[in-house]
Amino acid sequence: MSTIKIGRYNSGAKNCITDVEGVKVGHVTIDEQYESSNEFACTGVTAILPHSGNLFKEKVIAASYIINGFGKTTGLVQLNELGLLESPIMLTNTFGVSAVTQGTLQYMLQQNEEIGDTTGTINIITGECNDSYLNSIRLLPVKPHHAIAAIEEASDVCEEGAVGAGKGMVCFGYKGGIGTASRRIPYTSDQDFMLGCLVLSNFGNPRDFHYSKYINDINQDSIHKPEDGSIIIVIATDVPLSDRQLKRVAKRSTVGLSRTGSHISHGSGDIVIAFSTANKVPHFSADSFIDQGLSIREEQGIMDDIFAATADMVEEAIVSSLLKAKTTIGRNGRAVKSIIDK
Amino acid sequence: MSTIKIGRYNSGAKNCITDVEGVKVGHVTIDEQYESSNEFACTGVTAILPHSGNLFKEKVIAASYIINGFGKTTGLVQLNELGLLESPIMLTNTFGVSAVTQGTLQYMLQQNEEIGDTTGTINIITGECNDSYLNSIRLLPVKPHHAIAAIEEASDVCEEGAVGAGKGMVCFGYKGGIGTASRRIPYTSDQDFMLGCLVLSNFGNPRDFHYSKYINDINQDSIHKPEDGSIIIVIATDVPLSDRQLKRVAKRSTVGLSRTGSHISHGSGDIVIAFSTANKVPHFSADSFIDQGLSIREEQGIMDDIFAATADMVEEAIVSSLLKAKTTIGRNGRAVKSIIDK
Amino acid sequence: MSTIKIGRYNSGAKNCITDVEGVKVGHVTIDEQYESSNEFACTGVTAILPHSGNLFKEKVIAASYIINGFGKTTGLVQLNELGLLESPIMLTNTFGVSAVTQGTLQYMLQQNEEIGDTTGTINIITGECNDSYLNSIRLLPVKPHHAIAAIEEASDVCEEGAVGAGKGMVCFGYKGGIGTASRRIPYTSDQDFMLGCLVLSNFGNPRDFHYSKYINDINQDSIHKPEDGSIIIVIATDVPLSDRQLKRVAKRSTVGLSRTGSHISHGSGDIVIAFSTANKVPHFSADSFIDQGLSIREEQGIMDDIFAATADMVEEAIVSSLLKAKTTIGRNGRAVKSIIDK
Amino acid sequence: MSTIKIGRYNSGAKNCITDVEGVKVGHVTIDEQYESSNEFACTGVTAILPHSGNLFKEKVIAASYIINGFGKTTGLVQLNELGLLESPIMLTNTFGVSAVTQGTLQYMLQQNEEIGDTTGTINIITGECNDSYLNSIRLLPVKPHHAIAAIEEASDVCEEGAVGAGKGMVCFGYKGGIGTASRRIPYTSDQDFMLGCLVLSNFGNPRDFHYSKYINDINQDSIHKPEDGSIIIVIATDVPLSDRQLKRVAKRSTVGLSRTGSHISHGSGDIVIAFSTANKVPHFSADSFIDQGLSIREEQGIMDDIFAATADMVEEAIVSSLLKAKTTIGRNGRAVKSIIDK
Repeated sequence: MSTIKIGRYNSGAKNCITDVEGVKVGHVTIDEQYESSNEFACTGVTAILPHSGNLFKEKVIAASYIINGFGKTTGLVQLNELGLLESPIMLTNTFGVSAVTQGTLQYMLQQNEEIGDTTGTINIITGECNDSYLNSIRLLPVKPHHAIAAIEEASDVCEEGAVGAGKGMVCFGYKGGIGTASRRIPYTSDQDFMLGCLVLSNFGNPRDFHYSKYINDINQDSIHKPEDGSIIIVIATDVPLSDRQLKRVAKRSTVGLSRTGSHISHGSGDIVIAFSTANKVPHFSADSFIDQGLSIREEQGIMDDIFAATADMVEEAIVSSLLKAKTTIGRNGRAVKSIIDK
Repeated sequence: MSTIKIGRYNSGAKNCITDVEGVKVGHVTIDEQYESSNEFACTGVTAILPHSGNLFKEKVIAASYIINGFGKTTGLVQLNELGLLESPIMLTNTFGVSAVTQGTLQYMLQQNEEIGDTTGTINIITGECNDSYLNSIRLLPVKPHHAIAAIEEASDVCEEGAVGAGKGMVCFGYKGGIGTASRRIPYTSDQDFMLGCLVLSNFGNPRDFHYSKYINDINQDSIHKPEDGSIIIVIATDVPLSDRQLKRVAKRSTVGLSRTGSHISHGSGDIVIAFSTANKVPHFSADSFIDQGLSIREEQGIMDDIFAATADMVEEAIVSSLLKAKTTIGRNGRAVKSIIDK
Repeated sequence: MSTIKIGRYNSGAKNCITDVEGVKVGHVTIDEQYESSNEFACTGVTAILPHSGNLFKEKVIAASYIINGFGKTTGLVQLNELGLLESPIMLTNTFGVSAVTQGTLQYMLQQNEEIGDTTGTINIITGECNDSYLNSIRLLPVKPHHAIAAIEEASDVCEEGAVGAGKGMVCFGYKGGIGTASRRIPYTSDQDFMLGCLVLSNFGNPRDFHYSKYINDINQDSIHKPEDGSIIIVIATDVPLSDRQLKRVAKRSTVGLSRTGSHISHGSGDIVIAFSTANKVPHFSADSFIDQGLSIREEQGIMDDIFAATADMVEEAIVSSLLKAKTTIGRNGRAVKSIIDK
Repeated sequence: MSTIKIGRYNSGAKNCITDVEGVKVGHVTIDEQYESSNEFACTGVTAILPHSGNLFKEKVIAASYIINGFGKTTGLVQLNELGLLESPIMLTNTFGVSAVTQGTLQYMLQQNEEIGDTTGTINIITGECNDSYLNSIRLLPVKPHHAIAAIEEASDVCEEGAVGAGKGMVCFGYKGGIGTASRRIPYTSDQDFMLGCLVLSNFGNPRDFHYSKYINDINQDSIHKPEDGSIIIVIATDVPLSDRQLKRVAKRSTVGLSRTGSHISHGSGDIVIAFSTANKVPHFSADSFIDQGLSIREEQGIMDDIFAATADMVEEAIVSSLLKAKTTIGRNGRAVKSIIDK
């Protein structure tokens, strides 16, 4: 397996979003032929949990950034207003968003009996890319129970490539999907900050991929489909950033994405969600509503370390999604090849 | 029935959003006791169709504005990026969003065989308010078929009050829900422009309602619940406005809302969606991608007529939702009274 | 002098933005006939200082909100990016912005020798309304030294009406200009929060003013000019709000503005700047970049108190600008009457 | 002189923003020692004119995009609200913004006697970068007359490098400043569209520059200063784009910027202004306010051509600013070297 190393910062132990303490990832992969020989369920669900506790009762500070908005991600209106994330971040295919949101809602209602009864409602974040080249997306293969299963199987191990929501995705004409990376930012002599990233890659035209920056030799057998296509980028960190600061970090994802060769196509839903695990916000609290919390003074040094590391990490996670994804067969007998298989 | 008349512009023939030619509204009302005597399905779905043709193949120009974003409306990311609406605008309760989006997706897929196969995907707009005071929202009474039925029964008659998505809503402590109004803007000697508005009202504290502006005498029997709560405002027009101009119009909804007494509470999802039926945009076209279209030069006179009329119309639609809504019984034996019944 | 009292919250001791501890206001009024008998300098400068220390070295958290953007306010790009205010907020006429910004820059450079040499630059906020009905705005009567004088004469007394930047402004066809108000929000038994507001009012058509809500009898002698026109609204508070929370507060200004009768006209630069004096941010610091700061958990109760009080306070400040402004004569022999003089 | 060619689209005849018909550029360069031997005026002004007519009376459609907002550009509030540009776009150093805006105002007032008298006001766009490494920025060497001179000397020839506003700028540790490029997009067999770009480059750390993509060998003698620093990017086109579409184009500048090595540093004012010369909007008009105009239907093919070409063109303009800039001496005896001189 090729390995790559982008930029001047070290990665965490697993080079994975789960290097940010408490973050977990779960995948459910759907890979089934329908009775009709041309139809194939080649899709899935991926859940990113900001921490292991009750996500509704211990919210995390979060922000989103829309690189290009030709996409159907749900939940960003409230996330932007309040700067809070109170559910897992769910990823799936474009037409699976309702089913995944429904399943996640059922899960959260079951975990929290107060929701919709004695307290307010809950806001669920579901991102998507369009896997209809390989997946029979019109047949709506994703069901609510797949979302619940992805949440329940989440752990601190993160498989990459053609798994979970990444099962049917295509990137630069090759098999893409889930990729992850992390970066360690030195802070004091005995403490580092951690940044982690997970992408769902589904964009790009083969002619645009700057592959020679990453690997010597690629499989020439790419597919040529229109260059619309999307990426969902999730960023986690333990730096105590505010929602405004997280949005600034999220924007730097564009740098990493651009360096791979994307020009952010017209038909892309390129969307970033960033959260910090540092200052959790309780839903219920007996305390005064005045809190004391940690924050970062936005100085040139630390912010540029965070921004530069984010750009590197996103670029690496995208390339990793390509290097880890195996050749996959889907509907209409279509195959999308691994970039490194020969 | 009390009638009110706000501002200096005349309304259309029906004083209804369907005064904008081609716009249709459909309601499905759900009103059923569950086996448990305390649980009640007191909710519904409302569909607003921008025109009678194929909404995916003939898109309309649209914009959204977030007055306050504590809400779960879907589809705004893409609507904002492209300035286009390609589905009905669906309204329901907060936990019905997934089911309604799923049903609308099924309806649109059935109408358009190309979607998700030979052409791209579709973006569905679903707005919501929280009706959990009267409705057993945790039991998820809204199903996908309710959305399909609301679309299919849409017509140019618009019932108001405790119907469709408005069935379980509460406004200023009284029964609220669906309200509508329209305004006619003189343009030339033989042509007028039309503006229409439909609201789903679910906000406000009794002490804040400026009722004496509208009616002489009100039922004193309001409920006192927390002042969070939301409003969804849909604006239609036949003025050939661009998406930027529609957003400016949408912002003037805040003026009408403020005049009723709202201070736009912390817990509100106060969201506006505005569209114009004037310049339809084909999904498929054999023509050149250079179009000729009508547009409005933003001059003081016409824009101020549109803005002032929008403010008046939204205010009137909110008051109308109160005047038309009948006393309603819901879960836990709770009743919310009509503001005018005694 | 008529007095008014809007809403259910008490005002501070002076009912003035300077009720927020440390905030100061200074005015320079320019009222001079040019040699040409038709030309008149009827304008001025107003400075709002967030605190009495070095504003560059002790920044305050801030946000802006654009109600309508037909205006020329400077400095908002950086204020929005960083959530910080590092200069006085300056108000003047539309064509005085450059001179006032230049003067403020000179003042700040003189106070801070490091700026532009060993440290970075400085961002200055200057807001404006168009006073060209009374003021010979093309002759550029405002000079840099007027800005410096307004800063230097700032105190905790705030004169209202036709003073400073308010000298030539017109509101609802009557003499408008500077208005101020404050509100006290109960917090604990022995501590309150304070909100203060200062407006520069220059908008509205006489027919739209809801005057009967405020005063029994008005001077009928209003002027009738086009209904474009603007308002700048400055909000100060000692509540430890983040920049995102301050933006939410700033948005509630629209509620107060709407209640006076404005529909936010096409030609208006209606702009809000809000800051908190609670957590000052040092420009230079020997400390770690990790800070501990106070923050507010956004709960329904406290946020709705702040929002409702803001709406009331802005409405009252606008009405106060009318009640305090004296009949004023300007260019071309034009007079704009006080709303209460007969 | 090295030449570079980035991407698959051809450039216009001059590879310059003035390849877009009617666009003109003017520079005034200030290069004077002050009496004090350490102080140096090493700065200037650049004017970009969207067309050769009266810019106030024939406005062009425009948009802006803030890549990072640590900057002091003026005029964006109104440009964003109305989607219109009605002045030259002026570039200078950070503390020259007021003087340049003042001079441009004087120029526009002189050209248009109605402004501020019988019609409304005018909105001027001035962008800036901080040239204080070489320029004695605290001494405010830029005066209003420099802005007027830059406008008056504008032509369709565009000098690059250490000229105009670019005189004192530093990019990746080398002499930067003004760079330009253009791209031709095939439309029909006998018509092309044109895109042009002009940058003011003043950002980057030497270690981050991906120089080997562009030139074989560089001068090793870069300066090492903090990596904050900015870029102003101006994009012109004759494609009939709306303001929303222009904003989408402006966003693709980030792609080109990222590919040079920038991670968009914390301290950057990275700001894009884009305009189209296709549909001019008259300030005064006897016609109906309903216009017929050309527009582009946003299809994958044409939009991706425009987006990809924009990314390439911005990247090339940045590199060109480095290749064209000559070694420059400024305050405190400081020198910044040309990247290609040895």
